[in-house]
Amino acid sequence: MTQDQQYREFIDASLECMNACNYCYVSSLKEYELASLRDCIRLVRECADICMFTADALSRGTIFAKEIMELCAKACEACAKECSQHEHDHCQKCADACKRMIELSCVHSA
Amino acid sequence: MTQDQQYREFIDASLECMNACNYCYVSSLKEYELASLRDCIRLVRECADICMFTADALSRGTIFAKEIMELCAKACEACAKECSQHEHDHCQKCADACKRMIELSCVHSA
Amino acid sequence: MTQDQQYREFIDASLECMNACNYCYVSSLKEYELASLRDCIRLVRECADICMFTADALSRGTIFAKEIMELCAKACEACAKECSQHEHDHCQKCADACKRMIELSCVHSA
Amino acid sequence: MTQDQQYREFIDASLECMNACNYCYVSSLKEYELASLRDCIRLVRECADICMFTADALSRGTIFAKEIMELCAKACEACAKECSQHEHDHCQKCADACKRMIELSCVHSA
Repeated sequence: MTQDQQYREFIDASLECMNACNYCYVSSLKEYELASLRDCIRLVRECADICMFTADALSRGTIFAKEIMELCAKACEACAKECSQHEHDHCQKCADACKRMIELSCVHSA
Repeated sequence: MTQDQQYREFIDASLECMNACNYCYVSSLKEYELASLRDCIRLVRECADICMFTADALSRGTIFAKEIMELCAKACEACAKECSQHEHDHCQKCADACKRMIELSCVHSA
Repeated sequence: MTQDQQYREFIDASLECMNACNYCYVSSLKEYELASLRDCIRLVRECADICMFTADALSRGTIFAKEIMELCAKACEACAKECSQHEHDHCQKCADACKRMIELSCVHSA
Repeated sequence: MTQDQQYREFIDASLECMNACNYCYVSSLKEYELASLRDCIRLVRECADICMFTADALSRGTIFAKEIMELCAKACEACAKECSQHEHDHCQKCADACKRMIELSCVHSA
């Protein structure tokens, strides 16, 4: 099994999470109650960046897989915590994608 | 239909292509006949970067979608041309993923 | 002269512009009149991404230099247009950094 | 002092290191003794990516500054160790830029 295959599930989840975060970012910037979403906007955008970086690094077999996955899990935790406070559908979906990442992260670090 | 949905197929193909390019990159660097793969290594790595950038930008509804997709199609053309010259399985698969991108690009620019 | 040296000025300006855009992004998200800055927030963040991608690609001698610099100039034009409409110091500085990029871009495409 | 200013020195060093790594990457791929540079090529390219990601994240005031700087320092350590084994000028310069990052990292984590 190549390193790429070993991390396949994590890579796919990272890309899903990146998509959910980017969608939440764009949608949040269109919401009427923009002021309440300042932290959300920053966090989902940052989480999207970190997920993308993670997927890219893992797919080329980075030797820093452990560290990068830990960073990604931390970003997803912060993002899930923030987004789960907002009732918008895009926030709830983003929180779900982040929670999936945290689960997978636990499997890998176990 | 959101911009995200409109470009969904292109985003998914970009991520597939990024994976194929990254796999070809890592595999090429392990090949015995390394010297014949100099251009291949550089091109697949660059194509991977551009595909990732494209997927990320499209998934957050970039207003530069047309320009970015054109750049991505150019990178995929150059990469497909290079990789199809090499018999390695990873090169052939990378060329296939790139050709798929070129097809999709034609649909969008039509 | 290596390709890296040839593009040195453009790379440095891209990194300056990335910094100005990122600073404007963070500052805009803290402003009281957030609603008037929706487009600004999205554009400066996107321009930052494109500038970073441009600097990275040029510094490793991309064969797509022309296309990437054109994309970057377009992003800087849109960003300069948006930011120059806002009186905030961070917006004005961001607009200035973008205008510098447009000037350099004209030199290279001349 | 803003977070951006606080990390200014680290950001500038990251961008310098990214440049040195990218230059080493491109130059290594042109060397005659390519086979001896397999690890070098992969590591400098990865280090360049991580440095760029670090500079970008710090310049927009990431809340994960500590984790990202630690990851960056680890990448620079591995890259410095590898590059200092090769006599090529581009490898030596890359190793120097990486060592500068490790020093700065120690200051910040102290």
